[in-house]
Formats: sequence, C-alpha cells, structure tokens
Amino acid sequence: MAEKITPRETDYSQWYIDIVLNAKLADYSPVKGCMVIRPRGYAIWERIQAEFDRRFKETGHSNAYFPMLIPMSFLQKEAEHVEGFAPELAVVTYGGGEKLEEPYCIRPTSETIIWSMYKEWIHSWRDLPLLINQWANVVRWEKRTRLFLRTSEFLWQEGHTAHETEAEAIEETLRMLEVYRDVVERYLCVPVVPGVKSETEKFAGAVRTYTIESMMQDRKALQAGTSHFLGQNFAKAFDVKYQTRDGGLDYVWATSWGISTRLVGAVIMTHSDDKGLVLPPTLSPEEVVIVPIYKNDSKASVLQYADKVLAMLKEAGIRAILDSDDSSSPGWKFAEWELKGTPLRIEIGPRDMAAGKVMLVRRDTAEKTPVAVDTVAATSRQTLSEIQTALFERARKFRDENTVQIDTLPEMLEFFGAEGTGTADAHGGFASALWCGSAECEADLKAKTKATLRCMPLNQQENISGRCALCGAPAKHRAIFARNY
Amino acid sequence: MAEKITPRETDYSQWYIDIVLNAKLADYSPVKGCMVIRPRGYAIWERIQAEFDRRFKETGHSNAYFPMLIPMSFLQKEAEHVEGFAPELAVVTYGGGEKLEEPYCIRPTSETIIWSMYKEWIHSWRDLPLLINQWANVVRWEKRTRLFLRTSEFLWQEGHTAHETEAEAIEETLRMLEVYRDVVERYLCVPVVPGVKSETEKFAGAVRTYTIESMMQDRKALQAGTSHFLGQNFAKAFDVKYQTRDGGLDYVWATSWGISTRLVGAVIMTHSDDKGLVLPPTLSPEEVVIVPIYKNDSKASVLQYADKVLAMLKEAGIRAILDSDDSSSPGWKFAEWELKGTPLRIEIGPRDMAAGKVMLVRRDTAEKTPVAVDTVAATSRQTLSEIQTALFERARKFRDENTVQIDTLPEMLEFFGAEGTGTADAHGGFASALWCGSAECEADLKAKTKATLRCMPLNQQENISGRCALCGAPAKHRAIFARNY
Repeated sequence: MAEKITPRETDYSQWYIDIVLNAKLADYSPVKGCMVIRPRGYAIWERIQAEFDRRFKETGHSNAYFPMLIPMSFLQKEAEHVEGFAPELAVVTYGGGEKLEEPYCIRPTSETIIWSMYKEWIHSWRDLPLLINQWANVVRWEKRTRLFLRTSEFLWQEGHTAHETEAEAIEETLRMLEVYRDVVERYLCVPVVPGVKSETEKFAGAVRTYTIESMMQDRKALQAGTSHFLGQNFAKAFDVKYQTRDGGLDYVWATSWGISTRLVGAVIMTHSDDKGLVLPPTLSPEEVVIVPIYKNDSKASVLQYADKVLAMLKEAGIRAILDSDDSSSPGWKFAEWELKGTPLRIEIGPRDMAAGKVMLVRRDTAEKTPVAVDTVAATSRQTLSEIQTALFERARKFRDENTVQIDTLPEMLEFFGAEGTGTADAHGGFASALWCGSAECEADLKAKTKATLRCMPLNQQENISGRCALCGAPAKHRAIFARNY
Repeated sequence: MAEKITPRETDYSQWYIDIVLNAKLADYSPVKGCMVIRPRGYAIWERIQAEFDRRFKETGHSNAYFPMLIPMSFLQKEAEHVEGFAPELAVVTYGGGEKLEEPYCIRPTSETIIWSMYKEWIHSWRDLPLLINQWANVVRWEKRTRLFLRTSEFLWQEGHTAHETEAEAIEETLRMLEVYRDVVERYLCVPVVPGVKSETEKFAGAVRTYTIESMMQDRKALQAGTSHFLGQNFAKAFDVKYQTRDGGLDYVWATSWGISTRLVGAVIMTHSDDKGLVLPPTLSPEEVVIVPIYKNDSKASVLQYADKVLAMLKEAGIRAILDSDDSSSPGWKFAEWELKGTPLRIEIGPRDMAAGKVMLVRRDTAEKTPVAVDTVAATSRQTLSEIQTALFERARKFRDENTVQIDTLPEMLEFFGAEGTGTADAHGGFASALWCGSAECEADLKAKTKATLRCMPLNQQENISGRCALCGAPAKHRAIFARNY
C-alpha cells in the first residue's frame, strides 16, 4: 500500500490526496464539489466533535437545530452578509413538485435564520445570555475544492450567542477562541496563532473576526477556526431588542463561532509523512494495533500471547486491536497500519514471547522498544502520551522555524518568491511584519505574491512602533502574512 | 405555566402542541413545514441518538457521511423508489449564481447516492459485509406537518448495509429491527409491535419492510422505526456486483433502516399528561431537580442542606440540579419542572431539614415519599429505576387494553366509528384481525375508516386459519389495523 503515496517532495498536493484516498478517509463523490467522508475519516471527526461538544457544554452552551433552508430575503437583511455569501449559494426553487413562491437557499451559515428565531425568544435581560450551538451541514458553492479542506458541502458547528452588553459579547468571542486554541493544540496537536483578522478578511457581517491560524507542512497557512464579534448588526437586521435591567430597550449583542471538517484535513497535513497518515492518539480510532508474527508451529501460542496482551491493554482503558487476519503477511500489515496512522504498533513473535517481551514501534518516529510484557499497558500509555506531546512540539518547531520577521517589501517579495525576485523556489512560510492597517497594502501584496494577511496575533500588538513593511507608512499592527488554503 | 396546557380530553392535538411549545422543546419556523428544535428538545434527541449510536457500533456498524445533494437522475434508477419519493422532493436548480446543468434534489433518503459509492468500494466478497450508518438531515416536502411527528426537514439515522447472501441481509434487517425494538421499549419506554408492512405500506424500493408500531394516548398508531430488506434492487440499479467466494460474479444484497426525530414526538405523546411533559429518566436532561423551600430566616441553612443533597446525588452519578432561583416561588417552580417533565423532584424545607429528611415527589404518579437524607441517593436511584419501568408498563397496559381482536367488517367499522355505524365517538385503537392479503381490502377499509394496515406482527403468523375480517376470503395473515400519525 505505502508505495501508492506520492512523496511530499515530489508533489505535496498529490501526497495529501493519496493519503486521504488510500487511508480511506474520504472519497470523491458524483456531486460536484462534494466529498464522501468514509468511516475512518468520520471516526476522526467524531472524536474531534465529541471533545469540542464537551467543551461547549462545559462553558454553558446547549445544542439546538434550525432549518437548513433559509428564505432568500433573510440574507438580504444584513448588507455585508448577503454580499459575502450570495455568490456561493445553492438555491432551492422547487418543492413537492411546485415552483416555490420565494426561493430558499441552503444555509451557508445560520445567523439569519437563527436571529429570526431569537427575535421570538428574547424579550428581557432575563432571557440573556442565550448560548446556543448547532452541529450541521452547510453548503457554499466552491469553484476549486479539495478533500476536507474546501468542499461545497461540509460539516461544522456554529455557535450563536446573544448578550446584554458589548463587553460580555466580546468576552464570549474570546472565550470560544480560547476553547478552539486549546482543543486544536492539545487534542489535535496542531499549533496555532490566535489573532484578529483584517477588515478585508473578516466574516461578512461581523464587527471583528478572531481566528486561529495553523501552518501546514508546505508552509501554507490554514485557518483552523474563527470566532466573530457581531456587535448589534444581526440584532438590528432582525429587530431583536430586549428590556434592559433599568427598564430601557436596547439591541442585543451577538457572537458566532465555528469549526468544521476541514480540521480533519489540518490534522492530516500537519502530522503525516510519506508512509501515510500520522494521527495523535486522541484522534485515532485505535491507539494500538497488535501484529502477531508466527509460522504454522508457533501460531497458536503466539496468538494466545497476543490475546493476553490485548486484554491487558483494554483492561487499562487503551483502545487496542489485534490484527489476526491470516490472509496477509506481517510486513504488509505494518505498512497498512502505518498508512492508517495508528500511533503505536506492538509486534509479537515467538522470540519476543520466549523472552516475555513485546516490541513497541512508534508510528511518528519508527522507534522500536522491547518491553517486558508485564509493563506493556503502562509503557504503552506513557508512550502514547509522549507521542501526543511530540507531534505538537514537532509541528510547533516547524512552524517557528518557518516564521520569519520581515521588515521591507523586497524581503517580503523574496520570501514568497514573487516574480522578478529570482527566488521562485522560495518556500515562504509565516512572514511576521509591521503593517500600517491599509487594505491597499494587503491587496497589493496579494496580487504580487498570493500571500494574504492571516491575522494580527493577539499579545503582539503592544508598543507597535516602526514602519509598515509593505508601504513604509507608520505601522499600527504586527501581522502574519502567508499563502493559505 | 401549567394552565397554558389544553387538557387531552378537550383537544388532544392542541394538548400536544401546547406541551411542545410551552416546555420549549421546539418551535415553528419561518420556513414552510420546518421546525426549530430548541435546546430542551434537542437534549432529548441527543440522548436517544447516543444510545442508538452505541448499539449500532456494538453491532459492527461505522458512521460515515454522504452528500446531501443527489443528482435527480440517480433517483430514477430504481423505478419504485423514484415513484415513491418524486412528489416530496426539494430541488436545487441554482448553484454559485448559475443554473445547474442537472438539478439536484436534497436527499429524502440516501440509498441512491450511497449505492453509487458502494459500486466503487465493493469488488469482492472480502469487501462484505459493508455496515455503514449515517446521521443526517433529510427533506421530504410535506403538505400537513406536525412538530416532531412530520416535518419537511427532519433529523434521522439511516443504516445502509451490503451483504454476500440473501440470508445474511435478512438476518441484518431483523437484527436492526430488534435493536430498534429494544432501545425504543427499554430506553424510551415506548412499547411497540414489531411486524411486517403490507405491499401497500412498504418502503419504495424495498422487497420487504419491517416496522415497530407504537400506540399514542389517542389510540392512533405511530410508526417508530423501519428496517428494510432491499433484496438486490439497488445493487441492480447501480450495477454493484462482487466476486463470490467460488469465483463467480453476483449482485450484492442490501438492507436499510432508519429512526428519526419523530421518536421525540412519540415519547412526548406516550408519557405526558395534562400538567405537561413526562420523560423517562434515561431521556431527561435532569433526572432530579431539588427545589428548596425557605423564608428569609431559614434561607442560608436550607440552601446549605440542599447543596449537600445535590452533592450526594451527583456523587452517586445522578444527573441532578438545584433550582435556587430567588425570583420565583416554590409553587411556581413545581409547576415549571412538572411542565418540563423532570422525573423526580426533591423538596427541602426547614421542617424536612430539622427531621433530617427530604421529600421525594414522582412526576409520573405525583406520589410523595419522605426520605432520610442519608439514603437520598440510593432511594432516588431506586425510584428512578421504578419510574422507568412504570412508564413502560403503563403504556403497555394502555396499548393492550386498546388492542381488540376483530373478526368481521361491521365490527371493524364500528370500532373505528365509520359513517353510518352510529359509533362516531368510537375511539378505535389497534384492531387485530385476520387478513386475506389483498390490497383492495386495505384500500377499502382506509376509505371507510382512515385505518391502515400498520403491520403483520412477527410471531403471530403461525397457523393462520379462518377468514379475512374485511372480505371473508380465506385469511393468510394476522394484521393490526389502526388510524395513524
């Protein structure tokens, strides 16, 4: 199986596709721009989903479900919102054999349908805060699609909250950004830069968009989650006022925030290698796979020994399986489980058995360690924990090594290998640069290098002094520029 | 709050709507025929979902996700299937601002899109069985809708499996029917009759449809879940052949099976009363609510005592909450939690506290029991378990009392209060009758009484002898006839 995977050096895009298809994570579908998430891909999403869901509930949110179809007129109520989403809509014009009086779009996001309901539900400050999350499918008609990373239909969660005050809404926006950062870094082992989007890059309808930005192995950025402070924009669009504590009447303050199945793509791209998928133990359907090695005369005893090891691992709460399929060789199985990304392999042969040992093999480093069978559960648990940490640290090191401070436009053009710089093979990365705040500078850089302003990192915005790396005007912010998915 | 609920005797339909709206389980939406599932309704669905999901995985199934949009031409590949679903389709004709070359429908069910993929994935008997489940939203354009029970968009799961042999596929169909029966009866406390549908009532595209049928408090039937043996119909429609163990080539055998958010409606209608929702402990977001009763001078000590009780319950793994809201009276809270259906209420006042006791109040029977505080967790656990059993037994008794053996057409017409029988106030129920197997008899009865053939109960089909209750011809089956949702 492993030879089916194109090496990253040869063709990074093809490497990614080869892993997704060969590890059976997803498949192309006969529906334009839409993918099928296969069981092993969906199992990763389920684990991501469960952890986020736990964290959302822990922070006081409840799940609910709103209609997938939205009257077209609803989108038009918020001017920036419709402008941003209109080009990407799928539109239902017939229902039950009849042409509809008003067409519906399939939700590209649910602010409008949700705020039309919030108008019914919110009357007084006693109804606030309203903290609702929805797990759902959405459709955004995309021209260029890529498995998991960008598909016309995708699965996501969208939080939509309503608050009494601006301060509370901003606090919520940042609280959820922090939940995102924490889960993506600790559970998915994907390091991120939390920051603020520029006006150009913010969500259509938001006052301010916060983001977590990650770096893939080709040094491109991938937006891993966003949290929006919506101000009173949607409350005004849907006329949602509430009686304040002092008897007045005011518009409600809002947030929304989302992560999607693209995170599965982020995980694949961040950790995998030329042998296939590499998964953090938290996300792998199996943490450990046991592969027995035997000939006819040793089969029964090796399998019995392997069963005992399996029982010990399960007893310790480790998600372990035994691959006792007789129709393929141990070597074939090694390659197969490496392709599938199982974090830890345990090899058991007659000699291991005779010595009262097993062989632990790490997927991430290929490191082999003989372990006494009595300590197999404890050592596995310890090793899995080390893998979880190591994956994150390796990715962070890579990200940091490819984050470069850049002070001038020529440097920036060289960094991204712009035409005429003679650095067409420059691989780019994250350019950390001072910025004047002008959209023209952003647009100009994008035209020359395809790099966009990914975010203004939080906690790097103090004491800004110096000049914009792009135009030389006085700088207002420090920003990360990068090519992106 | 409680006075908002129309009594069942006055208007059963309105009673149901009042409970759904006042207990904030769901709401009407601005999208025709679609509902919003509010947090307390969605929490019930999440618990139903989790239990089914666990059981599906236990029986070897994996979750996956297929596109929501299906090319219209796919539906036409199976003649009965398209005939059954075409009148209910929502059709997408525009995407990304352009008219689509081929329109897509929003899935009304996913056999066609899934079997188009199974063609890619299944080549050999080694690829079988393929056991996949999907949790998804579907759209069937409905003219008459009812919250939870029938809405144009609803949430469901659909299992789609592929097998080597007919026998295996039939075994799977029945296995999943049994999972449905067990979860619906034991977890939802809704008694059901498992049986086979008639040709008239079977799924469009199935060879045979199995069902579990429940009885609501107005004695109408509600189909709670179906499991279909699809034969080779979809394998032939999508040309899915596999290499057999003996080197031949054959079409694959298939099943599909589904339950939906209508089960939430079934739970509400089966257990609730004129005070509001009644929920089995398994499904309630809170198993126990503690309501403290105090005056100013006893407030601090009662709350401290209540906190201790809360801790004891939580310690024992019971989902308990303390309603310490100061802005409403205990009496108002009692009514509110009765409306919400919390199975067990614990009242704690100064006198209870002085006696080292608390007062347990069952939602289902209103029975009050003073309990020594030291045993509160054990007694609550025991009482919750009794409620779970009692709800099922009460519903089964009601169902059995309203299941009547009927031998002749005049009796049948009287039972359902058909015109001209002088029994317009007959309330009907389940009519258990012998049946000749003819669709004409079914259609005739439906025209006269609105009653349909709900199912031919499994295990009641042996030694059939006698005459069809409808036409007098020799009987082939025993069937349940009822009006239905």
